[in-house]
Parts: sequence; structure tokens; C-alpha cells
Amino acid sequence: MGCAHCGAPTPNRLCKDCDLAERAEERARADGGMAKTSAEETFSAIVSADTFEDALDAIDCLVDECKIHLTEGGLEIRAVDPANVGMVDLELATPAFESYHASGGTIGVSLERLTDVVGMADSGDLVHLELDEATRKLAIRIGGLDYTLALIDPDSIRQEPDIPDLDLPATTRLPAGELERGVTAADLCSDHISLGADDDAFLMTAEGDTDDVRVTVDAADCTRHETSESVRSLFSLDYLDDMTGPMAGDVTVRLGNEFPVKLHWGFAEGAGEVTYMLAPRIQSD
Amino acid sequence: MGCAHCGAPTPNRLCKDCDLAERAEERARADGGMAKTSAEETFSAIVSADTFEDALDAIDCLVDECKIHLTEGGLEIRAVDPANVGMVDLELATPAFESYHASGGTIGVSLERLTDVVGMADSGDLVHLELDEATRKLAIRIGGLDYTLALIDPDSIRQEPDIPDLDLPATTRLPAGELERGVTAADLCSDHISLGADDDAFLMTAEGDTDDVRVTVDAADCTRHETSESVRSLFSLDYLDDMTGPMAGDVTVRLGNEFPVKLHWGFAEGAGEVTYMLAPRIQSD
Amino acid sequence: MGCAHCGAPTPNRLCKDCDLAERAEERARADGGMAKTSAEETFSAIVSADTFEDALDAIDCLVDECKIHLTEGGLEIRAVDPANVGMVDLELATPAFESYHASGGTIGVSLERLTDVVGMADSGDLVHLELDEATRKLAIRIGGLDYTLALIDPDSIRQEPDIPDLDLPATTRLPAGELERGVTAADLCSDHISLGADDDAFLMTAEGDTDDVRVTVDAADCTRHETSESVRSLFSLDYLDDMTGPMAGDVTVRLGNEFPVKLHWGFAEGAGEVTYMLAPRIQSD
Repeated sequence: MGCAHCGAPTPNRLCKDCDLAERAEERARADGGMAKTSAEETFSAIVSADTFEDALDAIDCLVDECKIHLTEGGLEIRAVDPANVGMVDLELATPAFESYHASGGTIGVSLERLTDVVGMADSGDLVHLELDEATRKLAIRIGGLDYTLALIDPDSIRQEPDIPDLDLPATTRLPAGELERGVTAADLCSDHISLGADDDAFLMTAEGDTDDVRVTVDAADCTRHETSESVRSLFSLDYLDDMTGPMAGDVTVRLGNEFPVKLHWGFAEGAGEVTYMLAPRIQSD
Repeated sequence: MGCAHCGAPTPNRLCKDCDLAERAEERARADGGMAKTSAEETFSAIVSADTFEDALDAIDCLVDECKIHLTEGGLEIRAVDPANVGMVDLELATPAFESYHASGGTIGVSLERLTDVVGMADSGDLVHLELDEATRKLAIRIGGLDYTLALIDPDSIRQEPDIPDLDLPATTRLPAGELERGVTAADLCSDHISLGADDDAFLMTAEGDTDDVRVTVDAADCTRHETSESVRSLFSLDYLDDMTGPMAGDVTVRLGNEFPVKLHWGFAEGAGEVTYMLAPRIQSD
Repeated sequence: MGCAHCGAPTPNRLCKDCDLAERAEERARADGGMAKTSAEETFSAIVSADTFEDALDAIDCLVDECKIHLTEGGLEIRAVDPANVGMVDLELATPAFESYHASGGTIGVSLERLTDVVGMADSGDLVHLELDEATRKLAIRIGGLDYTLALIDPDSIRQEPDIPDLDLPATTRLPAGELERGVTAADLCSDHISLGADDDAFLMTAEGDTDDVRVTVDAADCTRHETSESVRSLFSLDYLDDMTGPMAGDVTVRLGNEFPVKLHWGFAEGAGEVTYMLAPRIQSD
């Protein structure tokens, strides 16, 4: 078994680096640090419903509730699923907004409720967000619709993951649709998919009880394809199915040998960025 | 608790006016009056499938079976749901038909069966209706399809409501889509919706356990908006959800203070008219 | 009760002709005849995904697995549903393929798995099929997707029916949509449908507990309509519902009096041909 955070080999739940990071974060929480909001905290923003929906979709395929950091540079969200297998790191920078003012602080939200409210918008509508400091509620305005969303105490939400900075030998950039096709094909005969890269191609393979499937994307059909060695890691299809859902445009896949995969893509004309990290399944043979 | 028919305050199940109306109708039934059909009764009509479907949809969101009065001037349907909370009054006048002949009388129909049969038509098809006096069945012809629908004894169908002529102080005419949007938004956080009107706007609000929502339609965005006072009444979303489904075009909403709401709209180029009346929920605070 | 194969009157499970045919086939199986494949057997083909899907759809509405005969002239499939009521005979001749090489032999396939794999193709994609003689698996290639499908032992699959060459007095050729409309209308009030033909029209009728329906297709609206007598047979709607699903274009219906119906249509510009045969329900009155 590997580290629950980064997948690196370790006899313990977490590897040494991740364990240190977790302890540091626990100290910060005990100090009422980052998760606590100061008295002068303010937040108001206007964003297109399409952009905000893209951001929320990228998170709610993994978790039901999350912390949103209201930094001066934009919104930041990090979350890990309850099984500690899939992580997401999202940034929606100020250029993605029509208007944005934030003085720092963190709010906790129910993603189901928030996506339902934003889903009331028609494509092209603007969503107005404003934090009420006194009541700790988020006012959401879409046209003549005013919704007052009760926030969740950030301290009650599952701790944010520390997404490790892995040195992964293979990097492939390809259309999200190709990745989704491989995941769908693997689903036909197995619960797992092996992602791999060699000099010539990006490979998605699955072995079922009786049938096999192999989807090959030639290096020439990728926007980018570089690898210093042949690599291959096995992943749960449940997670990859959920993660490919919100993807659009080109996705960068970073792979190692029996190591986590990192999936990165941008939205909102580059002002939004998402990184998923998924822990590998260790092959038993 | 208010009168089960009109919502007016009363210690009894029905207020005095509604009680008198109910007794009068019971006498008429005992006399074998309006619900009984005379021997010479005839009915044949041709109507576009789209128009007939619009009419049936407006009824079957409230009841499973209904009486249809075959008057010389057109079809008339009144019905109340089993809980005595929502009522409908529909008239489809002769100009809505390609051809129409009726000598009076009343038939009882299963709406599910009838809508399924009419649903066999393609848009633009004509539906031919003809009552067989001898067998008490309704012959329905759509192209080469001939369906013989067994009728229901009108006396076995829930008594028709007497829809009261209320003096409601506020009248707003607005697109059906606006009303539907308010109902959908209220559904996000509550089982009830408050409809209100003041000098400036038509208001739809809902209060959930933690969240609130408020949809404002400015008077300037309404086709018509008049009120002699600020009014507000609370309604069940279940009923309004069902009632907004068949609406199209502009809807006239007539409101009072903790009083029933009347919703009126036309179809079939004005030859069809529907009025819903919905009893209020009395606020407990 | 009629013969389970052809519906002809008989006191036994099968009529004399069908019984003889079944015994002959059992002898052939015992000899390891047609279902066994020789050592030199080869098969490789390229076909458009749309054509191959049309062929598989025509089979999988009746059975879950089937034998496919890889003849020099194309693919041949015959199957009967577990209740011995509905049969299918399909031929997809070589002109339907971009490329086709087969030296004879028979394979057994799971239709669900095969249709799912072929369903991965986009419209216009080509499907490459190649039998691996050594492993007895079918390699399916669609673009960069390579699927290896484990085959089923043909001997473990329900015996193929011997579809009798009936002399049916009525022949009608009409658009598949007309047949489907009659089936849908009959479904409104019954579990059975009567198909009939007289000098003037092709008739589909159903009698429910209270309601009746009759769909008439005038001879003038049929591509072809000939009958030497008035005929009429009763069929299960469950089967006809499934059988009308894959139909397209014009369908030829051949009918008798309380006899099986044969439904025939072509696809792949005539290179594909399907015949369904459905045993009648004997009317109890």
C-alpha cells in the first residue's frame, strides 16, 4: 500500500512528507488560522454563470461540500474525496470575473445546493455573489432572483489535502474526448484502467475476466507527448469516470510507474485551472 | 383553517356561501339534473391535436378523471383535486374547433387514457370525436386510427367545485416562464411559496430551514400590474409546480392577503380559457 | 395449441415437418457438423459501424447470444427466443462490407457485449473484425480502439430454428412507421394485436376490457397489397413491440388465418435482409 496522499511507497498511512504537512495543517487549525475569518472580511464578485458552473462541476464530482478560499487573486478550492484517493486543486483567478473584491478568508459551502442555485441561470446570465459578514450567509443574485445560502462552518469540512509536487516522467497533452473514450471503452470489460506512455503513444488498457481493450493515441495525435521512460499505472475507473465528466478542451496527463496520475486543464480562457490527482491501484501480480 | 372551497375564514369545513352552493348542487344531482344525459343527446367535433392536448394537460395535472360538459358553445370542464385545494375551470369554445356539434349533456372520461390516445397524433393532425349514444362510448379518430373509449358514469366522478367569484385586490399579468422560474427557485429551499404584490413588483419568496429565496418581477416587466394594497399569501409548491406545467404565453395572477390565488390564461388563439384557483396555506406564526 | 415452430395445428409440441427438421439438426450437432470449425478457418472483415449496428439490433431484440455463420457469401444468423415464439433469420451479404474474407465456420457471441463495443464507434466509423484462430477470440478495431472479445462455444447456444417456408395468402408492403403506429395504439388498451388483410386494407386491431382500437392502412397507401382471401391472426404485443424497434424503410408483412406472420425488410442498401417469424396466439372464443 502507498501513502494515502501521494501514493509513494510507505508502510504507514502517510509517507513522511505528507505526515509532516498534515501535522502542520492541524496546528494551523488549532490556532484558528487560515480557516477562521477576520472581522473585516469582505467578498463580492460577479461572474458568468457558465464559468462558475464549470468551476463547481470540477469539484462536486469528488466531494459534497468544500472550503472556498476568498483570496485577493481569486477563488481557490482544494478537496479530497472521503476515501483519500482523488484530490482536486482549483483556482479561478480574478480575470475570470466581471468584478471581484475579496479581503481574504474562507467559507464552507454545500456544493449540491450551490450548483442547484447557479443552475437556475440561463447561459449568458451573470451571477452576483456577496458575503454577508454579519449573518455568515452568501447572497447569490441572478437576474431578479435573490438566493440567501447558509454557509457551513469550514472547520466541520474534511481537511484539505496537501497535493504533493511529484516528479512524473511522462507528460501527454491530448483532447479530453480521447481520454473519455478510453475510460468508456475500459468500462466495457473491467473496473480498472491502466494509463501508460511509451516513445510512440499514450496508452489506455483494461483487462477483464475474458475480454481486453486497448486504446492507443499516437504521439502524433497528441498536442504534446514526452516521456523519459516507458511508464504505466493502474487506476480505478469509478474515479476517472467522474473526473473526465467536467473536462473540456485539451488535458495534460502526467504519469509515472505505479505512481499517481495528475490531470490538468484550463477553463474560462485560462483564468480557471484544475488539477486532479488520483492515487494508483497497486497491481497484485 | 379556511373554507375548503374558497379559503375564506370559517369555523366549518365550508363558508356559508360555499355550503349553500354545495347543497344546491347535491339537490340537482338527486334530481338527475345536469349530469344526466337526455335521449337525443349528440356530439361530434373535429379539433387539432395540439389544441385538444393543451386542454387536457390543463386538467390532468389536478385530477385523473373528469366530467366534460358538451354545451352548444363548446366544451366545459370544472374539477377539484381530491384534497379540495386546487380547482380548475376550463372552457374550449367552438372557434377552437374545425367543426363542432353538441346538443348538451355530460360525459365522464379517464384523462390518462384520453391523453394517451390523443398523444398518438402527430403535431398538426386533426382529432375527430363522436359520441355513440347507444353504447355510451366516445369514438376518437386520428388519421387511420379509430379508438373507442369507454366513458365513465359522470355520477361516479368527484363533484365539480363551485369556483367562487372572489374580489381580489391585486392583478398581475406576466409571462408564464417568470412564474415557473419563481416556483423552481422556491423549490430549492422550501415546500411552500409566498406570492405577493406591492406597488413596485410581483414577488415570489420562500423560506427554508437555512436558506431563503426571493424572485422579484418589477412592475415594468409585467404586461399589467395593479394592486390597491400590499398583499401576500402562502401556497403549496406541489400544486403550483403542477399548475405552471401546462401554462403558456402570459398568465394573469389575482392575489389577496391570505386568500386563494387565481391564475388565468388563454390558449387556442383565445378560444380556450383556463382558470386555476388554489387555496392558501395559513401561516402559523 | 399449434406447433411451437410454425404455429400449424398439431396435438404435439411440433408438427411433423418441424419435428423431422429438429431431429435432422440434432444429428448434425452430434456429428460435430456445422457448429464445429475446421483448423484452417479464417475470418476478417471491415464494415461500417452503422450497418453492423443495424444487423445486431435486429437480433438482440430476441436473444442475448447467437451463432454467427461466417460463410463465403457473408454473415448469416438464425435465432429463436427462449419461449419458441419469435424467430429471426438475418443475412448480411458481402456487398455490405468494405472488405470481407471468410472460409466458413461458426462463432458464438454475446450480443450485449458486442453491441456495446460497436456502440463505441461514431457514425461513419469503420469496424475491423478479425478472428484469432488460436485463441478463439474476435479482435474488433475501431479507430485506435482494439477490443478482444471472448467467443462463446456455439454448442452451448440455443439450437437455431428451422424457419418454415409457409404459404401465406396475404402480402402487404408498407412503411415500418405504420406498423409501429398500430402496435403503439394497440398497446393503449390490450396485450394483443390482431393483424389482418382484406381486399381494401391492411388492418391492425386490439380489443381491451373496455376500449377497442383499429388502425386501417388503405391498400392505396401501401407499396404493395395482395390477398387471396380475408385473413386475420392474433399476436403478442410484447414481441411485436420488440420486432418493430429495429425496422426501417418499408416492411413486407405476410399473413394467414390464425397462422404465423412473417415480417421482412432490407438494410445496407439491400445487402442486409431480415425475416422475423412470429407464432400466433390462438383466439379462445
